[in-house]
Amino acid sequence: MTDIKLKEHERIDDLERNNLKIIQDTKRFCFGMDAVLLTGFANDIKEGDDILDMGTGTGIIPILLSAKTKARSFTALEIQHDSADMALRSVMLNDLTDKIKVIEGDIKEAGTIFKKASFDAVTCNPPYMIGEHGLKNPDDALSIARHEVKVTFDAVCKNAAIVLKPGGRFYLVHRPFRLAEIMITLSKYKLEPKRMQLVYPFIDHEPTMVLIEAVRGGKSRIKVERPLIVYKEKGVYTDEIYDIYGY
Amino acid sequence: MTDIKLKEHERIDDLERNNLKIIQDTKRFCFGMDAVLLTGFANDIKEGDDILDMGTGTGIIPILLSAKTKARSFTALEIQHDSADMALRSVMLNDLTDKIKVIEGDIKEAGTIFKKASFDAVTCNPPYMIGEHGLKNPDDALSIARHEVKVTFDAVCKNAAIVLKPGGRFYLVHRPFRLAEIMITLSKYKLEPKRMQLVYPFIDHEPTMVLIEAVRGGKSRIKVERPLIVYKEKGVYTDEIYDIYGY
Repeated sequence: MTDIKLKEHERIDDLERNNLKIIQDTKRFCFGMDAVLLTGFANDIKEGDDILDMGTGTGIIPILLSAKTKARSFTALEIQHDSADMALRSVMLNDLTDKIKVIEGDIKEAGTIFKKASFDAVTCNPPYMIGEHGLKNPDDALSIARHEVKVTFDAVCKNAAIVLKPGGRFYLVHRPFRLAEIMITLSKYKLEPKRMQLVYPFIDHEPTMVLIEAVRGGKSRIKVERPLIVYKEKGVYTDEIYDIYGY
Repeated sequence: MTDIKLKEHERIDDLERNNLKIIQDTKRFCFGMDAVLLTGFANDIKEGDDILDMGTGTGIIPILLSAKTKARSFTALEIQHDSADMALRSVMLNDLTDKIKVIEGDIKEAGTIFKKASFDAVTCNPPYMIGEHGLKNPDDALSIARHEVKVTFDAVCKNAAIVLKPGGRFYLVHRPFRLAEIMITLSKYKLEPKRMQLVYPFIDHEPTMVLIEAVRGGKSRIKVERPLIVYKEKGVYTDEIYDIYGY
């Protein structure tokens, strides 16, 4: 394992899969269950696929997918310098520099940074909150990760559609309260929603996340998956969640 | 109770609520769980509301809603003569002629049959299947109830939007495989999806129905409800289903 330097407030967390580790900054956005569930949902990534992760943050999605799939390459795009730097060091820490390339850049410019129709799949855990709602400091790292400060969902879809090959797949996780807008925006850019799963914390609760797979140029017909329930009872994950986490 | 004549193949079924009955023809489309669940989902119909049920079939939705809500009036639109006639006799059988009016007519013309912006809510259990898919005899009563032979989902939404008051609510039940198209079409006619519930036969199965409430001119934000699970175990309904059926 490469020797990697940690900065102030950073720590190395064990991903409990293939001995993978990740560097996180306790003062910044740490990856959540949403990113992990997205890597479980994107289980139809194929051998040899080239994948782009838009807004990679700590790099959690490509790092986990490098272990879970047989994709050929991952490109991890991140606008925040400190996050991109952390992602790069995590890639080095895991000896994944051959497989995962970290690029500092803006999702809004993905369509020009990368070649058109060059990726087999795009993954994205975008900021969930719209505009000013609950926003205190638009410049801090957490706000940029959570709020649509730097990029809107429309721009995410627009750029995903440009860089995806025809028939390429777009995997995303988002909040259910934006579901109608998500469907409409995906469709606007010819990213047809083909598969969806709602994530319910408990069987009798409203869902807190939605996982969606859209296909560039696909036909209109969506498969809604069985519910993904997180907790069997308070503090006890369901078997499916343990399975996705790889315990 | 009014004395009502039954035709060949017809029978009277007990709705197990407020002593309501319904006439059904065993050779035609009999109401299903979807219609009943829609009446449970439309539980925010308000006192004094005027309701239109588009494609009422046997009249099951207005008949059940007359007992479940304090709506002022129901108008039940049905294109098939024999179904409209059956619905009318069921209304008479239940002494509901003051409350429920049956109109023989085409959903595609609802926007001209009725006054614009005249209903507080519209309910609809439309045909689910698209075009020719699995269609044997496009003229028979079952095909018309199940397939988009006489009306498309687009025309359903277009006409619902015309007859609804601003802020009026559109309650529908449909199949999950058309979810993306449903969201897009509703939105096209400014019927904003505001509430949705997926109906899963079992906790570990894909959903078989989706219930949606859209608001004419509403803002983009949807509340996805907790999952509605039909069976606790094989042959045993969950408490929630018993509750909706009113047992």
